[in-house]
Amino acid sequence: MFQDFSDQACPDQGRVRIPMLREELQEQGLTGFIVPRADEYGGENLAPYAERLAWLTGFTGSAGTAVILKTRAAIFIDGRYTLQVVDQVDTELLAPVQVPMNSVADWIVENATEADVIGFDPWLHTTQSIKRLEKACKKAGAKLVACEANPLDAIWTDQPGRPSEPVVPHPLSLAGISSEEKLEAIAKGLDGKADATFITQGDSIAWLFNIRGSDVPRAPLPLAFTILAADGRAWLLIDPEKLSKEALDHLPDAVIVRPQTDLQAIIKEEIGSGKIWQLDETLVPYAVKAMIEATDAKIVNAPDPCLKPKAAKTEAELEGMRAAHQRDGVALCQFFHWLDQMAPSGSLDEIGAATALEEFRASTGCLKDISFDTISGVGPNGAIVHYRVTEATNRVFDQNSLYLVDSGAQYPDGTTDITRTVAIGTPSDEMKDRFTRVLKGMIGLSMARFPEGTTGGQLDILARLHLWQAGLDFAHGTGHGVGSFLCVHEGPHRISPSGHTKLETGNVLSNEPGYYKSGEWGIRIENLLVVSEPQKPAGGEKALHSFETLTLCPIDQRLIAAELLTSEEKGWLNDYHERVFAELSADLDEQTRNWLAEATKPLH
Amino acid sequence: MFQDFSDQACPDQGRVRIPMLREELQEQGLTGFIVPRADEYGGENLAPYAERLAWLTGFTGSAGTAVILKTRAAIFIDGRYTLQVVDQVDTELLAPVQVPMNSVADWIVENATEADVIGFDPWLHTTQSIKRLEKACKKAGAKLVACEANPLDAIWTDQPGRPSEPVVPHPLSLAGISSEEKLEAIAKGLDGKADATFITQGDSIAWLFNIRGSDVPRAPLPLAFTILAADGRAWLLIDPEKLSKEALDHLPDAVIVRPQTDLQAIIKEEIGSGKIWQLDETLVPYAVKAMIEATDAKIVNAPDPCLKPKAAKTEAELEGMRAAHQRDGVALCQFFHWLDQMAPSGSLDEIGAATALEEFRASTGCLKDISFDTISGVGPNGAIVHYRVTEATNRVFDQNSLYLVDSGAQYPDGTTDITRTVAIGTPSDEMKDRFTRVLKGMIGLSMARFPEGTTGGQLDILARLHLWQAGLDFAHGTGHGVGSFLCVHEGPHRISPSGHTKLETGNVLSNEPGYYKSGEWGIRIENLLVVSEPQKPAGGEKALHSFETLTLCPIDQRLIAAELLTSEEKGWLNDYHERVFAELSADLDEQTRNWLAEATKPLH
Repeated sequence: MFQDFSDQACPDQGRVRIPMLREELQEQGLTGFIVPRADEYGGENLAPYAERLAWLTGFTGSAGTAVILKTRAAIFIDGRYTLQVVDQVDTELLAPVQVPMNSVADWIVENATEADVIGFDPWLHTTQSIKRLEKACKKAGAKLVACEANPLDAIWTDQPGRPSEPVVPHPLSLAGISSEEKLEAIAKGLDGKADATFITQGDSIAWLFNIRGSDVPRAPLPLAFTILAADGRAWLLIDPEKLSKEALDHLPDAVIVRPQTDLQAIIKEEIGSGKIWQLDETLVPYAVKAMIEATDAKIVNAPDPCLKPKAAKTEAELEGMRAAHQRDGVALCQFFHWLDQMAPSGSLDEIGAATALEEFRASTGCLKDISFDTISGVGPNGAIVHYRVTEATNRVFDQNSLYLVDSGAQYPDGTTDITRTVAIGTPSDEMKDRFTRVLKGMIGLSMARFPEGTTGGQLDILARLHLWQAGLDFAHGTGHGVGSFLCVHEGPHRISPSGHTKLETGNVLSNEPGYYKSGEWGIRIENLLVVSEPQKPAGGEKALHSFETLTLCPIDQRLIAAELLTSEEKGWLNDYHERVFAELSADLDEQTRNWLAEATKPLH
Repeated sequence: MFQDFSDQACPDQGRVRIPMLREELQEQGLTGFIVPRADEYGGENLAPYAERLAWLTGFTGSAGTAVILKTRAAIFIDGRYTLQVVDQVDTELLAPVQVPMNSVADWIVENATEADVIGFDPWLHTTQSIKRLEKACKKAGAKLVACEANPLDAIWTDQPGRPSEPVVPHPLSLAGISSEEKLEAIAKGLDGKADATFITQGDSIAWLFNIRGSDVPRAPLPLAFTILAADGRAWLLIDPEKLSKEALDHLPDAVIVRPQTDLQAIIKEEIGSGKIWQLDETLVPYAVKAMIEATDAKIVNAPDPCLKPKAAKTEAELEGMRAAHQRDGVALCQFFHWLDQMAPSGSLDEIGAATALEEFRASTGCLKDISFDTISGVGPNGAIVHYRVTEATNRVFDQNSLYLVDSGAQYPDGTTDITRTVAIGTPSDEMKDRFTRVLKGMIGLSMARFPEGTTGGQLDILARLHLWQAGLDFAHGTGHGVGSFLCVHEGPHRISPSGHTKLETGNVLSNEPGYYKSGEWGIRIENLLVVSEPQKPAGGEKALHSFETLTLCPIDQRLIAAELLTSEEKGWLNDYHERVFAELSADLDEQTRNWLAEATKPLH
């Protein structure tokens, strides 16, 4: 089992550790310290050594920051975690503050004084975040100091070591473009604009060198840094022991492997002083920027140059994604068939369901990891958007309720992410009305055609329209980018009101509208989509993108109020179900095949 | 008649005048000059004295710039005017260059040399545009020089004088908020951020002081400048002769009226040196910014503070807009009834139709002006998005064709803007398919509900969706802001892919999707909409904006392919038509009422 359901809420932790940290700070001449949930590599998935925020405070959410001053402390969390934080931390000790309506910077302005010397670990903050913190400290009259070593590591005596998992080649047959070609294109893009760039994120590095690793949970990433020069030189900064001979041979000849401790030397000696560096200020650690600035460099702020080409999947990557989704679809049908049998028993619970789903996926023989901890929520737990079941919250399946399951898999050829909501017993009319409105949005986005240059912000309304008409909405984005056997969340493209990146051929995106009735039940329906190459529809004048649906799994028709669907929407649903049956049925046992035939029968 | 249909294409004009200008430039020590279509007041509608571009080149489009160098010259026009420019200017003399894919700045970089000294009139360029031109001249090694007097005015011997039309009070009963209150709110908004601001645009000034004028065609604007201080002082810089005693009495006591020649004195002496000025760099003339900079001022760039409150109409303004649209609707029904009778005659032409429409509006007894020159295009002329009929292009109504008429009126209580496309004879299936797709978009936007904070960029797709599905589109925005007895185009809100301003309660917007079959026919359907206050729909959880439709005029049902409409869309259309009949029929003669009853009968 990849997923762990142990209850991690432990407000006692902070009561002991925060005073320890304050003592340590005093010894170092500091009055405060900032603890973000972050590692040096800007990723969402942290290796255990980097879970400093959780260790210090007890808070295990995927995003958050604590600020510890001498007599005050606060923890900054977003709307997803306002309930969880209260369970996990002692709020007397750590005041919960909700972002983005409030910010760490604002809190510092209000709470720090001229007597404060606030430390931060320069490897765990981006250049951009330090700019904001510096401004705030200046306003408060406080000092902001980059610490040479993280004071928290000094008191965390049983801190896990750095991961050192082997790097494995990602074959060209799955990547579609060689690492040589990718390096050449990025160097060409730099040429004339900058002499060098620094790549922070593990998925950019994995993509660039066609390698995968397993240093962090849920994403096949090696922890490493990369420096690229406009003249074509490339350094992969990684513990050399992670690289087998096979992995070394797989790297392009031009790539120089060096340990991360050589970073400063490469910046100073190999790139040299007085150069122009292109840096992504939203990603590059402050410590790295400081090293570069020390060489009299001129810094140009621009997005990580791997982001856009990584997001535009090759045909080989898409073939892998299709195969991964077909395989996942078989496991999902087995799961939902099993669930339909088990749910009425009165003994099935959320952990049992999540465990079974992981086992069905593992039985494909290809499962490298799940792509995130499964959200397995029945009844009121389904209404918690980012719910993670633990032994403490585990709920036996209510009857006449809804079960929401959002899950994904990492296979060697692709990453999946799917949400289905299914009826447990008899759904109410309200459930069916809401489910159908969510479905209409999901179908509206799936059917969209749109010209080149369209952003996700323009498309977002298609997923919300039918909820808005009824005075309803969902408080999350409609879709995020998904990697190809990489991270389940990748930028820069997304579908949300603030998605201003133009969508491009080969982008993979989730399409996941929802509706949540707080304290009662939740609905979300999610498929992954690929942006197709622009084509002129028959009789049309203009070539337009459309979406290809990757996800193959029936949508629960017991929850559809058919009279709310237009004939076009019914047509989409029936075509989709016909395709799901055609692509999966041959790989199912007879009972599951019969179940799928029933689940995909046309809606009239 | 307000509209003038005389043919203004005259390529000979430039052949004579451009050499005259070059001589004048040489005398002044210049080798080049930039001639934008602009006045000092940043408006779209120019008084005759400011039509320098048209006088010099012959080009009469609503946007454009000429750059005259010693041996080369170019005219920069957008996609609307690529055909018109060829008719109106001698392209041997003035090379047409299309913006925005090309720019004046790029052309200067490529065509100017180190020997060039290029002049500009600092009153006719914004601070922002000069920044770009300075950069370009620097790159080319050329000098950019602000001219004390416009060299073109020196050779334009019969240049019309400055308009000096009287200013009239705009009553509080129509404005809804007193000028005192508006001035106080703007001063309060400045307080703590800036000491003073400069207001450039005539519609901001008219709104702020609750006055109207008639210095420019098509919009009831006085030409004036305004300076506002954070301490509440306000200067109206205007020819004092324009103000009758009544108008003077109407102004708040705090307002100081001074001639525009006092501008520098007010900046230097009344505001004083070393102050913070808030300026809208996209509007403030370079000359004004230079005067302010000469006082050691600190300049903060921010949008004209009148824009947002002006765009959020008061209930009194909306009542006026409703009355104006009811009145306009009566005139429009008379016109379309008349048109249905006349069109088959074979003798009706575009000018005849536009003339009749203006006469029906004038017969209301309230018409102050038309709000823009009527676009009256039959057959292929309907496919020219910004077509203006002249005697040279005037077309007799083709049979079995489409007629597109986009027009508007200025009434004392409101501004209208409406487009209808009607069948002349029997429409083809293609016409009906396209018309119905455009209509579906128009209805989709009309029916939308959306939460606070939604931008026009998010809504735009609703108007295009059904065209995109068929590989079709229209190459213009979906909607622009409309003033209340002010300009027919006002910002900052709009509905277009790049509309990033949040819509607010009281915003008035056009909703005008179209489809244009080049060389054959064009379709556009346009209503004006008001953003309603957010309200919770029955059974909903969230308060949402919706749109109220202002425009009252039937949509030609002879052009609808009913099978393409959903029952919801038919419901909207039938409700709309029922409302049109209910609100207009009592003011129509019996024949027109019978025509309207037929035109608004329910679609099944």
